[in-house]
Amino acid sequence: MDYDAFFEQRLRALKAEGRYRVFAELERRAGSFPGALSHDGGDAPRPITVWCSNDYLGMGQHPAVIEAMQQAVARYGAGAGGTRNISGTHHLHVLLERELAELHGKEGALLFTSGYVSNWASLGTLASQLPDCVVLSDEKNHASMIEGIRHSRAEKQVFRHNDPEDLDRRLAALAPERPKLVAFESVYSMDGDVAPIGEICDVADRHGAMTYLDEVHAVGLYGPRGGGIAEREGLMDRLTVIEGTLAKAFGVMGGYIAGSAALVDFVRSYSSGFIFTTSLAPVLAAGALASVRHLKTSDAERRQHQANAAELKRRFRAAGLPMIESESHIVPLLIGEARLCKAVSDALLERFAIYVQPINYPTVARGTERLRFTPSPLHGPQEMDELLFALETIWSELGLRRAA
Amino acid sequence: MDYDAFFEQRLRALKAEGRYRVFAELERRAGSFPGALSHDGGDAPRPITVWCSNDYLGMGQHPAVIEAMQQAVARYGAGAGGTRNISGTHHLHVLLERELAELHGKEGALLFTSGYVSNWASLGTLASQLPDCVVLSDEKNHASMIEGIRHSRAEKQVFRHNDPEDLDRRLAALAPERPKLVAFESVYSMDGDVAPIGEICDVADRHGAMTYLDEVHAVGLYGPRGGGIAEREGLMDRLTVIEGTLAKAFGVMGGYIAGSAALVDFVRSYSSGFIFTTSLAPVLAAGALASVRHLKTSDAERRQHQANAAELKRRFRAAGLPMIESESHIVPLLIGEARLCKAVSDALLERFAIYVQPINYPTVARGTERLRFTPSPLHGPQEMDELLFALETIWSELGLRRAA
Repeated sequence: MDYDAFFEQRLRALKAEGRYRVFAELERRAGSFPGALSHDGGDAPRPITVWCSNDYLGMGQHPAVIEAMQQAVARYGAGAGGTRNISGTHHLHVLLERELAELHGKEGALLFTSGYVSNWASLGTLASQLPDCVVLSDEKNHASMIEGIRHSRAEKQVFRHNDPEDLDRRLAALAPERPKLVAFESVYSMDGDVAPIGEICDVADRHGAMTYLDEVHAVGLYGPRGGGIAEREGLMDRLTVIEGTLAKAFGVMGGYIAGSAALVDFVRSYSSGFIFTTSLAPVLAAGALASVRHLKTSDAERRQHQANAAELKRRFRAAGLPMIESESHIVPLLIGEARLCKAVSDALLERFAIYVQPINYPTVARGTERLRFTPSPLHGPQEMDELLFALETIWSELGLRRAA
Repeated sequence: MDYDAFFEQRLRALKAEGRYRVFAELERRAGSFPGALSHDGGDAPRPITVWCSNDYLGMGQHPAVIEAMQQAVARYGAGAGGTRNISGTHHLHVLLERELAELHGKEGALLFTSGYVSNWASLGTLASQLPDCVVLSDEKNHASMIEGIRHSRAEKQVFRHNDPEDLDRRLAALAPERPKLVAFESVYSMDGDVAPIGEICDVADRHGAMTYLDEVHAVGLYGPRGGGIAEREGLMDRLTVIEGTLAKAFGVMGGYIAGSAALVDFVRSYSSGFIFTTSLAPVLAAGALASVRHLKTSDAERRQHQANAAELKRRFRAAGLPMIESESHIVPLLIGEARLCKAVSDALLERFAIYVQPINYPTVARGTERLRFTPSPLHGPQEMDELLFALETIWSELGLRRAA
């Protein structure tokens, strides 16, 4: 078999479909967010404005975070030097886990190298170890949750998106004594819609099911101390597991779960994806600790973030752009075709120095290809004026669809 | 179902077997490796010597690495801000991938958030996407490889450890047209033995199989420029994929694969574990880049490392300690029972301020529980004298088995 020929043929198929991914080569600059340099031109790097980062609050350039990381590198060095069990547990890991448990009102928390790994490893471990477990999974769950459930080989049932009634019917049909795990997200990343957490918990409780809530697009952003949508709604104690990331609103890297002491210790003790990997570099733990602590007491970033998201939505609406209405900070414009989506993105970058990545299948369903804008507290009136002018120009030139 | 009661019962089972993991809470100190502070006493942190780190060369405290990371945090901020595809490709990722491809003499390289994820995602993607693929897996392969192969749901055959003849028999029995993938390691982490890479490649070539070599315990450490055992043996061009880590000899965090342009682009384009996760923080890429570049030209760390490993082995042999003879820098002492292993480790830490983690099942087979020493270039005569004195004392007091 000619392996390279096989790989090349599969890559050509992606290109033919217009969904071959080309990564924008950037250089973010602390102090200039959302400004960055683009290295794609070939010549000198070119200043651009980033409109699609998941560093939602700009905490990646916050002085307290940078200062903590500078100090950590100087004091502790580069890496952790081992797995958590073999010389790789740093004092900062313990402090950060305590801080995250407290943030979510849980007995314990456990760090992973990424949010992806926290979902994959935790769901994979719980669903495979609980005897005869059934997982009820929202149909729009993130790839990391789907892969974790797949890895467990437990029975899976997909319930309709954000639909407690469908969940209820499915749970009612299962034997009462079987372990059941309901896995869902609070804010869904591509549409920005929000789950009915309370109703889902009511249904889960009625049938004795555990609840596992992915809050990666909400921690730091919602709730009086940044505990997420569940904190805002006063529902944190209803959830068995809250999963979060340190790489989006907190601006650093890494993931975690929070839950009961027994559950956290169980995942810690039985999860291959937690045990057999080098732990988070102390510099990342230091930065995350500073960020989480800051956002527990400061509400200014959250307020400006919501204000800017509301303002961008208002302007998109006023301009008749085909926005997908959302309840959150995520502001998608529907394009509906992969090549067109890329053409708009390319024009924005080349002609207007505005970077927003096209989002194509399989990240979203075919026919719903989109540009996904993530206004931060740092996207001010100037950036919005520039963006609206560029979009108006391109929409007119290409004769793109307007909102109904 | 009472979920917490189930978790507690499973945790009690681990405790009853003496293999419940208690993490040593440490504070590594740049400039003082292998010295660190232990936070386990409850009172003030206590200075100890670490003898089980996988920061094999002490690159985690190298001035060039620390300087690069300090600068990167100041210039670029904390995190990458997105997945590789959505605003998270930093100029440093591109430079580092180029550097790693060059190190291994391959057309391309691809970064992952960890070595675990690089194995899991790459093997999972290759074995699931190649139609009707069979994976031939060495019986001592790391958990991350096993989980990746499991995830692919491809047919798997386990061949006898480091046994090209068994591999040959198994490959010969398979249909010639089926895609085949031989997955193995160069240095096995718990015994320190080394694979017959050339013979395995001969067998694989004879049957048209791809080869996937995990060099995580070898990159940076072997070969004239730190390319690993395959570089030392002049075999890099024989391997389809070389997988490595940035978290051990390179002292930072992250993992990678290197291979043909088509293969790397294929994994980049089809691997869920690569696509849907925030990319490596620029600060880590900066540190790794400095470390890889340094070890490409400097051989001093490698020479001192091998000298210290040889010296420790010589002293263990002279003292009649039950060492597992190895061809590498990994120096295990066989204890053979989980509780005893932990007792020796506890005594070393409490009475002699020497930290070496007990290694128990499932990391090693039952009956082969061990202490695994990893002498670095920074473990000098003073540290060795202290270690030998402590081991002699404990061995006599507990009446432990001596070497035959």
